Amino acid sequence: MAGGNVIEVYLDLLSQPCRAIHIFLNFNRIPHNVKTVAIRKGENRTPEFTKLNPMQKVPVMVDNDFVLTESDAILKYLANKYNVPGNWYPCHPERRARVDEFTAWHHTNIRPHAAKVFWMEVLLPRMTGQPTDPLKLERALGDLRDTLDKLEKMFLKKQAFLCGDDISLADLLAVCEVMQPLGGGRDILKDRPNLLRWRSRIQSALGDSFDKAHTVLYRLRDRAKAKL
Amino acid sequence: MAGGNVIEVYLDLLSQPCRAIHIFLNFNRIPHNVKTVAIRKGENRTPEFTKLNPMQKVPVMVDNDFVLTESDAILKYLANKYNVPGNWYPCHPERRARVDEFTAWHHTNIRPHAAKVFWMEVLLPRMTGQPTDPLKLERALGDLRDTLDKLEKMFLKKQAFLCGDDISLADLLAVCEVMQPLGGGRDILKDRPNLLRWRSRIQSALGDSFDKAHTVLYRLRDRAKAKL
Repeated sequence: MAGGNVIEVYLDLLSQPCRAIHIFLNFNRIPHNVKTVAIRKGENRTPEFTKLNPMQKVPVMVDNDFVLTESDAILKYLANKYNVPGNWYPCHPERRARVDEFTAWHHTNIRPHAAKVFWMEVLLPRMTGQPTDPLKLERALGDLRDTLDKLEKMFLKKQAFLCGDDISLADLLAVCEVMQPLGGGRDILKDRPNLLRWRSRIQSALGDSFDKAHTVLYRLRDRAKAKL
Repeated sequence: MAGGNVIEVYLDLLSQPCRAIHIFLNFNRIPHNVKTVAIRKGENRTPEFTKLNPMQKVPVMVDNDFVLTESDAILKYLANKYNVPGNWYPCHPERRARVDEFTAWHHTNIRPHAAKVFWMEVLLPRMTGQPTDPLKLERALGDLRDTLDKLEKMFLKKQAFLCGDDISLADLLAVCEVMQPLGGGRDILKDRPNLLRWRSRIQSALGDSFDKAHTVLYRLRDRAKAKL
């Protein structure tokens, strides 16, 4: 049972969607408590956590007695329920639909493809002690390139942010994914000036809350760089 | 340019999300024109269609000049913009969040796993002239079973519909997916009495609009049965 009206969020900051929620809550100064669930320690599979979310996944949000999973749904709930600026999830039907269109697309595009590269370069080698398979990695990087092409040509286009002139939930979810391969020392936006400028605009808009959520990832990146 | 205020939708009724939109528009008597895009004939890859949707996917909705892709976003846009009963996509933040939670989960669960069985049993044999690989099919059916277990235990539970007492967009998107393997003569809910009752409730609630959208699939099912 959450105490009073303070939202509780169960997060692992190595998880991309968890960082999106962490940033959203901090940036918009929504009072909340973070409960860390370290996936690498199996804390998402304890009996207590499984009771909270039988899917054994983070993030989970608890607002009074209301338990909600799925980052996409949590962010939209927070935007609907709390008094946040309208740019995040606009009320205007056409503008809202643009955010919903992106988040729907995201689930089977940016989300899996950026995650796979991180998985192959960082997590799998640690778990198995084996080096990354270069052929499989090349295939994963190819899929990711296609997806980034679409992100740029079909969503960002000539706009400042993915759904128009202002930052929205779409940018937040997307940027946390494209940051992930940095944990293996790889900047997937390196040769993409338009997407690099887009990411800079997001970082400027979010300020400290962005870096705070990415501290753990930056630490991994620095370790990966030190190895080279 | 769409004429006046009549929505145009580009659909292939063999596509599950297209059927969901077809049902939603008809059931809620939202004036619209259907433009058929036959994927099997490659009509989603013509220059004209590619201009409309560079992703070359159906469904696409055009409301005046507003072009929208992604079934999830289209259904929510229609529910937000047109005067449909509140049960479809409730305004109450907690109830709306339940629908958003389901639709987010759906993208990487019910959607791919039910589609894969149809793909392996119906589409692939037609395209290649080869019979279905029994081992691969068994694996796909196993994934689908896990997903249906979750659908039942974590979403439907003891409720009448996936998000509560009333039918919502969640039921509509889910039911169109679980219907798909019927096209190969397989009823994936056969041994699942709770999900069967859920599907019957949806069919009763939707009446003619459900059967109208499924005519093409029923024809495939009857052909598959005739072969046995």
